[in-house]
Amino acid sequence: MIIVLRPEASEEQINHLVEKVKKLGLTPHISKGTERTIIGVIGPEDVLRVTPLEVFPGVERVIPVLAPYRLVSREFQRKDSVVEVGKGVRIGDKKVVVMAGPCAVENIDTLYEIAKEAKKAGAVVLRGGAFKPRTSPYAFQGLGEEGLKHLAQVGKDLGLVTISEIMDPRDVELVAAHVDILQIGARNMQNFNLLKEVGLTKKPVVLKRGLSSTIKELLMSAEYILAGGNFNVILCERGIRTFEEFTRNTLDVSAIPSVKMLSHLPIIADPSHAAGKWGLVPPLAKAAVAAGADGLIIEVHSHPEDALSDGAQSLLPSNFSNLMQELRILVKAIGREI
Amino acid sequence: MIIVLRPEASEEQINHLVEKVKKLGLTPHISKGTERTIIGVIGPEDVLRVTPLEVFPGVERVIPVLAPYRLVSREFQRKDSVVEVGKGVRIGDKKVVVMAGPCAVENIDTLYEIAKEAKKAGAVVLRGGAFKPRTSPYAFQGLGEEGLKHLAQVGKDLGLVTISEIMDPRDVELVAAHVDILQIGARNMQNFNLLKEVGLTKKPVVLKRGLSSTIKELLMSAEYILAGGNFNVILCERGIRTFEEFTRNTLDVSAIPSVKMLSHLPIIADPSHAAGKWGLVPPLAKAAVAAGADGLIIEVHSHPEDALSDGAQSLLPSNFSNLMQELRILVKAIGREI
Amino acid sequence: MIIVLRPEASEEQINHLVEKVKKLGLTPHISKGTERTIIGVIGPEDVLRVTPLEVFPGVERVIPVLAPYRLVSREFQRKDSVVEVGKGVRIGDKKVVVMAGPCAVENIDTLYEIAKEAKKAGAVVLRGGAFKPRTSPYAFQGLGEEGLKHLAQVGKDLGLVTISEIMDPRDVELVAAHVDILQIGARNMQNFNLLKEVGLTKKPVVLKRGLSSTIKELLMSAEYILAGGNFNVILCERGIRTFEEFTRNTLDVSAIPSVKMLSHLPIIADPSHAAGKWGLVPPLAKAAVAAGADGLIIEVHSHPEDALSDGAQSLLPSNFSNLMQELRILVKAIGREI
Amino acid sequence: MIIVLRPEASEEQINHLVEKVKKLGLTPHISKGTERTIIGVIGPEDVLRVTPLEVFPGVERVIPVLAPYRLVSREFQRKDSVVEVGKGVRIGDKKVVVMAGPCAVENIDTLYEIAKEAKKAGAVVLRGGAFKPRTSPYAFQGLGEEGLKHLAQVGKDLGLVTISEIMDPRDVELVAAHVDILQIGARNMQNFNLLKEVGLTKKPVVLKRGLSSTIKELLMSAEYILAGGNFNVILCERGIRTFEEFTRNTLDVSAIPSVKMLSHLPIIADPSHAAGKWGLVPPLAKAAVAAGADGLIIEVHSHPEDALSDGAQSLLPSNFSNLMQELRILVKAIGREI
Repeated sequence: MIIVLRPEASEEQINHLVEKVKKLGLTPHISKGTERTIIGVIGPEDVLRVTPLEVFPGVERVIPVLAPYRLVSREFQRKDSVVEVGKGVRIGDKKVVVMAGPCAVENIDTLYEIAKEAKKAGAVVLRGGAFKPRTSPYAFQGLGEEGLKHLAQVGKDLGLVTISEIMDPRDVELVAAHVDILQIGARNMQNFNLLKEVGLTKKPVVLKRGLSSTIKELLMSAEYILAGGNFNVILCERGIRTFEEFTRNTLDVSAIPSVKMLSHLPIIADPSHAAGKWGLVPPLAKAAVAAGADGLIIEVHSHPEDALSDGAQSLLPSNFSNLMQELRILVKAIGREI
Repeated sequence: MIIVLRPEASEEQINHLVEKVKKLGLTPHISKGTERTIIGVIGPEDVLRVTPLEVFPGVERVIPVLAPYRLVSREFQRKDSVVEVGKGVRIGDKKVVVMAGPCAVENIDTLYEIAKEAKKAGAVVLRGGAFKPRTSPYAFQGLGEEGLKHLAQVGKDLGLVTISEIMDPRDVELVAAHVDILQIGARNMQNFNLLKEVGLTKKPVVLKRGLSSTIKELLMSAEYILAGGNFNVILCERGIRTFEEFTRNTLDVSAIPSVKMLSHLPIIADPSHAAGKWGLVPPLAKAAVAAGADGLIIEVHSHPEDALSDGAQSLLPSNFSNLMQELRILVKAIGREI
Repeated sequence: MIIVLRPEASEEQINHLVEKVKKLGLTPHISKGTERTIIGVIGPEDVLRVTPLEVFPGVERVIPVLAPYRLVSREFQRKDSVVEVGKGVRIGDKKVVVMAGPCAVENIDTLYEIAKEAKKAGAVVLRGGAFKPRTSPYAFQGLGEEGLKHLAQVGKDLGLVTISEIMDPRDVELVAAHVDILQIGARNMQNFNLLKEVGLTKKPVVLKRGLSSTIKELLMSAEYILAGGNFNVILCERGIRTFEEFTRNTLDVSAIPSVKMLSHLPIIADPSHAAGKWGLVPPLAKAAVAAGADGLIIEVHSHPEDALSDGAQSLLPSNFSNLMQELRILVKAIGREI
Repeated sequence: MIIVLRPEASEEQINHLVEKVKKLGLTPHISKGTERTIIGVIGPEDVLRVTPLEVFPGVERVIPVLAPYRLVSREFQRKDSVVEVGKGVRIGDKKVVVMAGPCAVENIDTLYEIAKEAKKAGAVVLRGGAFKPRTSPYAFQGLGEEGLKHLAQVGKDLGLVTISEIMDPRDVELVAAHVDILQIGARNMQNFNLLKEVGLTKKPVVLKRGLSSTIKELLMSAEYILAGGNFNVILCERGIRTFEEFTRNTLDVSAIPSVKMLSHLPIIADPSHAAGKWGLVPPLAKAAVAAGADGLIIEVHSHPEDALSDGAQSLLPSNFSNLMQELRILVKAIGREI
């Protein structure tokens, strides 16, 4: 932690700070510059971080030196984490894992139809929302438990790993009983009680980046889950909110290599929610994989005209199949498989 | 709803759309321009909104005409709503209501001290967090139920209305039992299950705008609560996330008159979280009131150096008292009281 | 300047840096923490700022301590600057200066009509664009020199100070010959050659903040003008670009007190461009003044239906007059005049 | 153009609008819905766009149907434009064109050294700034004409096409005399006089997207150049400004396929300015190419420690060479060449 003092800071104010720092068990290091005095503080920053040094008289700015996350950091674990999600599927390994399926589970027949096509094309994880976070209270809110059962059934019959979103800490047990991977959506990335609850299970979790969350905040939310004891976390870049209006969100493709620099956790991308337009999904999927993504989660629907949610960004099975063929060639060129 | 077709849309595609619209019980209205054909759709849009018309072949764009919210809109209720929050305090009326107190309840003595000063200066509502949403799992998470009890005790003793944040749908009953006003924080503005749960009570709710939520989304979240049967909703502008780094957030002062245009609900402002620096709180408080805010929620702490949360943006009681004196003159100039 | 080293930085790398710092005539100060080594660098930072220390092996981060601006800073000049713009009008003093007029000068008769009304209501500066920065090459681009002449004529006849936008370094002499205040628009805030050219004159300059410029960048652009020898700079907050769509831009009202903290330069606000909707102009004007703005620049048009630019955000003379009456009461409440 | 009326709009107000529309030579089409009346306007929108219909009494919203750009649109020209930039290099064709070189030209020897390495690795265009837009007036501003001469000399000797930034309309002739491609930087994307001046030449132009410019605005700025008669425009995505702080800017990789949808112009990417960190340049370069970019512009410096500008984001020649080898394999996988 570095404390930058105001030009007019008095000796008394500096001493007051130095004492405070020492009382916290840390070692202050004073550098007097021509225009400013700086106090470097040696020792674990966690103790300091909760002390509002900015309000001490004479302080201009406080600059943290260490990252606020620990367990998720590269420094905590040098080598890449690989998360096993069931049926031999491993995320963070050489294989790029593709998850596909409808935005929402609507009925079991449509889900079967989509899942079969997705599997044929190469997807190994089946996605499908049973609890849907919808901006409008009047929009379709998902089938709930029934949707989870459909997902579990289809996953079992076709040998696909399953993933579904969880929105409520009260539903953790229910969702965990039916699906292989819990998904925490962008709007719940800082639903801290949900993070804590999910941290108490051992279930793999896909944690999506919030619409306006920094990479650091994404890592801090993951830290909540790891701190609870659950290290099976997969991060997901799904687009951030910017001023651009042509796309639904802006896929922050830089987040993928940035996360790889800062953390050992695997990261996948969701080009469907980022784009908001199915025509942009294939180029964004390819960009994410080229940037190092460990997987993709893609919305596929056999009858997007009848989809109850997000039809506009869903690929038809035929388009998904074409994309998978292109990805198969692309991943080879970067030394991976699909 | 207006459907804009691609220049190359075929007659067949247009007919396919027209049929779909009719099947939904709505009336299509076709205008053939020189460069584009447009279909205006007459009838309630709710039905259309859940149908992904963008994916129909030949469609370029779909433009909604009506706002997606109903109960919160000015069209639903022309005159301003006034929310009674207890002890004769009414929000949305002539009086500008000032809420003050520490970010977090830390212990009963400090709370008493701050509350007395706040009351003396003119605050009528006491704020204090018992459940704290913290970016870091290692930061102080609040006193929980004990904090709520302290708040209730001090509120009762000093005759102050109380407000505290609720983060978890499981805590609604508990928090509602101890405080007068439930607060839903920025990070939970789209925690839809929490909104639904709160909608089932009759408790007044302060709903804070999310960091990257549009005004429309804020109104949609309020709609969740009203749709559940609870009309006692007060909106709160607390700063949005932008590229600017000097302030913690950017207070969107335009949101105040914008909400007044679109909705009958009262709106207050939180200059403390917007600014992130106590020195900016007074000018922002004045700006918000000048723009028409029905109230303010301000962090005050008697010992910001020891505050366990947000000390840097807390006013000292003396500064708060000065601000209240300035506000008292200001509100008179705009025909209101404090 | 503070240099934070990577945990794995070697002694050799540290020495390499220390030598570099010394070669630049500065004094390094090494603090070895438990997890990181930090080098504090004592001496003028300007020299260091141009050296890309981030690329030196072993360096994790470089943190500047001093602000990069000098002449515009509060440290350079403690007391507020007051800029005299002619006809006894002083910006930055007790009087809040109101500038009003059409977005673009369209013809002399309309300009007269608007100017008379604006003056009657209390405006002391007449605005009117002769060179218009338009997103589309097919939109009205302004009357050019003819527009400047109209403006000068009307200003002279009515005893109003005049202001008009300059977009091209080649036009400085021409615009300066006709108007009292040069305006640099948001899109040209970082047109550095234009800033340099304007810095060589002594003409008062209103420098508008760019759509996505930080407060620091605004001050750096002002620094260009002051560094050229022209200290007659007035800053202008006119709204920044955010994700919010209801308003054209987001008026960053916090920028007003923030600039006052960091700089001695006066700052005004442009509520018309910020709002994009005339109905929001009055509340935003009041908010800006309550936050400490030294002036306002407001679009007024007698026939907004026929305006060639920005009609939607122009006030009618009658609305402007009402606003001025409200402002007159408001400014008294904060100890100022109009 | 679609005009949405307020629910309370009177017959008289509707007639007033209808007359206005007819007077402009356009055909109004009225649809009366249950809650709103809508007027569809048939005919060229350019005429309407300059009329501020929002201010007519009774109007709630005006929605344009057609894109405001013409010459740059896919509708104007179906097939992809290919821009010839000299020495047989064509941008927008099968070959992905790589431009490389230092941020700024510092001296001829270093430029030679970097250019030789860049060429050996596969770059065909040499970049180097002679006029540098710098946030600070005290930072290195470029060598000016001398820098252009160095660039021309090295380009000629090594058979490389050259590109350099132009910031001032007064410099068009000078820069055009020395280099093959004019570059308009992000900060000048809406320097309309510069766009017009460049539109009068036939020189190829790389137009960079502004920090906070939408894709539509980028296309509108290109329209200025085409409208002047110069169709040799290459767009460039270089990162937009968002709230994310880990990267200098956020590379909006979606802009690449979005531009391809909307326009026939080629688009390249600048991963160096987007990332701000050299370690992120390779993954972003690959992502951009995978998303369909027609080229890349990359900062390379042989001695980044001594670079006078942007050293932190420059690749060493060896890293650039490695990247080029990876790109060579990648582009083959997507059916292109390098």
